[in-house]
Amino acid sequence: MHIADQIQAQIEANHSIACIGLDPRPHLIPSTVKQRCLAEHGDTPQAVGAAFSLFNRSILEAVAGHCAAIKPQVACYEAYGIAGMQALEESLIHARALNIPIILDGKRNDIGSTAAHYQQAWLGTAPGLGDDSTCENAWRSDWLTVNGYLGSDGIEPFLDPQSETGIFVLVKTSNPSSADLQGQKCGDEQVMHAMAKLVHQWGSGREGACGLTDVGAVVGATWPAEAQALRTLMPNTLFLVPGYGAQGGTAADALAGQRSDGTGLLINSSRAILAAWQQEGWADDDWAGAARAALEAMNDDLNAER
Amino acid sequence: MHIADQIQAQIEANHSIACIGLDPRPHLIPSTVKQRCLAEHGDTPQAVGAAFSLFNRSILEAVAGHCAAIKPQVACYEAYGIAGMQALEESLIHARALNIPIILDGKRNDIGSTAAHYQQAWLGTAPGLGDDSTCENAWRSDWLTVNGYLGSDGIEPFLDPQSETGIFVLVKTSNPSSADLQGQKCGDEQVMHAMAKLVHQWGSGREGACGLTDVGAVVGATWPAEAQALRTLMPNTLFLVPGYGAQGGTAADALAGQRSDGTGLLINSSRAILAAWQQEGWADDDWAGAARAALEAMNDDLNAER
Repeated sequence: MHIADQIQAQIEANHSIACIGLDPRPHLIPSTVKQRCLAEHGDTPQAVGAAFSLFNRSILEAVAGHCAAIKPQVACYEAYGIAGMQALEESLIHARALNIPIILDGKRNDIGSTAAHYQQAWLGTAPGLGDDSTCENAWRSDWLTVNGYLGSDGIEPFLDPQSETGIFVLVKTSNPSSADLQGQKCGDEQVMHAMAKLVHQWGSGREGACGLTDVGAVVGATWPAEAQALRTLMPNTLFLVPGYGAQGGTAADALAGQRSDGTGLLINSSRAILAAWQQEGWADDDWAGAARAALEAMNDDLNAER
Repeated sequence: MHIADQIQAQIEANHSIACIGLDPRPHLIPSTVKQRCLAEHGDTPQAVGAAFSLFNRSILEAVAGHCAAIKPQVACYEAYGIAGMQALEESLIHARALNIPIILDGKRNDIGSTAAHYQQAWLGTAPGLGDDSTCENAWRSDWLTVNGYLGSDGIEPFLDPQSETGIFVLVKTSNPSSADLQGQKCGDEQVMHAMAKLVHQWGSGREGACGLTDVGAVVGATWPAEAQALRTLMPNTLFLVPGYGAQGGTAADALAGQRSDGTGLLINSSRAILAAWQQEGWADDDWAGAARAALEAMNDDLNAER
């Protein structure tokens, strides 16, 4: 099944365009989990990895069937080396078992032959050591975020016609300094518009039955006017929208880039879901219940505006 | 010691501006290593990781004292999951033991708070699970390549005034399609010039005694005219130059961006060094000797033109 149709089916079945940013950090871990992992592993990276894995497991079970996708941020895991990557691997395996689509937020990028290795790491299989052998990949995800600064040959390895995977290319990011380069005037346009045109071109002819392609775009919720302009340049592109909630984007801001039929968007939230247990009224050990309630509030907020 | 002075000292001591791209791939592994690892681990990612680690170990010992730095390409290791990252970790530990400066080629990038986690992964320490604890980082490198498309707040986490580490920001990459975005006209200039100005600004006031800053730039050897133009925009910037040799850049091309005193460059070569044993005249099990001879030829080629 075309990867865009797959996520569209998930959106419709779950009545949710929410994507859960699975970005654990030590200060987001409830004290019961902390104590247990410190007792078992000492104050080590292994303790952090074990805590991330335990924490994520309950979050995944709480959000399965109520969101469109999860989006683990690789940096959060990479910061803890092998132990962190093991926690990510365990979470990816668990998400797959729960049938939650996975958007791997790695913002990977390189020149052609090397970009192929990132494709192998996150979306494909890598050549093995034996003749014509391949290595099955435990980190297999459905989508990968990529940075298109290097141009077409760095993107092509992700566009294998056989693969049922997709990418999201950074176009307009949600951060305050995104205008430093993305907003520079480029002829009559801005750099982000040049990138948007490339994204449209890369996805051209790759539409699923839903009309969306497997080459998506990252378009921050903190820039609603820009999102509308970018939609006209990328009519068939699925937008992955970070910046809703904790970063300041409202539901209306986040939805600014939707297509006329209300499709074409995935809205990400991380801190508001993972740290929901820190809000008043929640017991320290009910982080999963708090996350589920925060997700339901997010779904209601977004669905009311769609 | 300022990280730019450190690499400058290495360049002078070793009479070399060569950087060895430590980018192992199954087809670059000699059959003796392949057989040994397949016998020990079967045809698994673990076999690939073990082969990379063994192969790299001899390469590192062959080039130590004769190059300016090594540059492992993370994608090559990431393609094999945990097993690949363990091989990278072992190679980084061995390189540190041999006092070879490490440029980690990860082209990492994200918004501010997340970019901080990439800094923790590759250049710093991450917060631990215990109160005020930190996790020592086995992947600690000296420099990290980064992608500046997200702007200043994605770069700032790498510019801790206390850190004795550096970054190389992608400006003009060596690949054929680099003009797709980097060459787009931006007012009177091109996108890469806007990026070059940001790099100059990010490094400003951060010069070491050698006059170079800890905010370097990636400038491909395949674009000599562009390298000269970029040097005027980034007078105090260390250029990391890929594309020499296998990708087609000559010594003169690679050196086009040097400062008037002949400093300011690191020239990378990967395939020509790692695959040297596949050239006629070398025994299959002397990949290290072949690499060392190829490095000496590279040093001679570059030093004759400097």
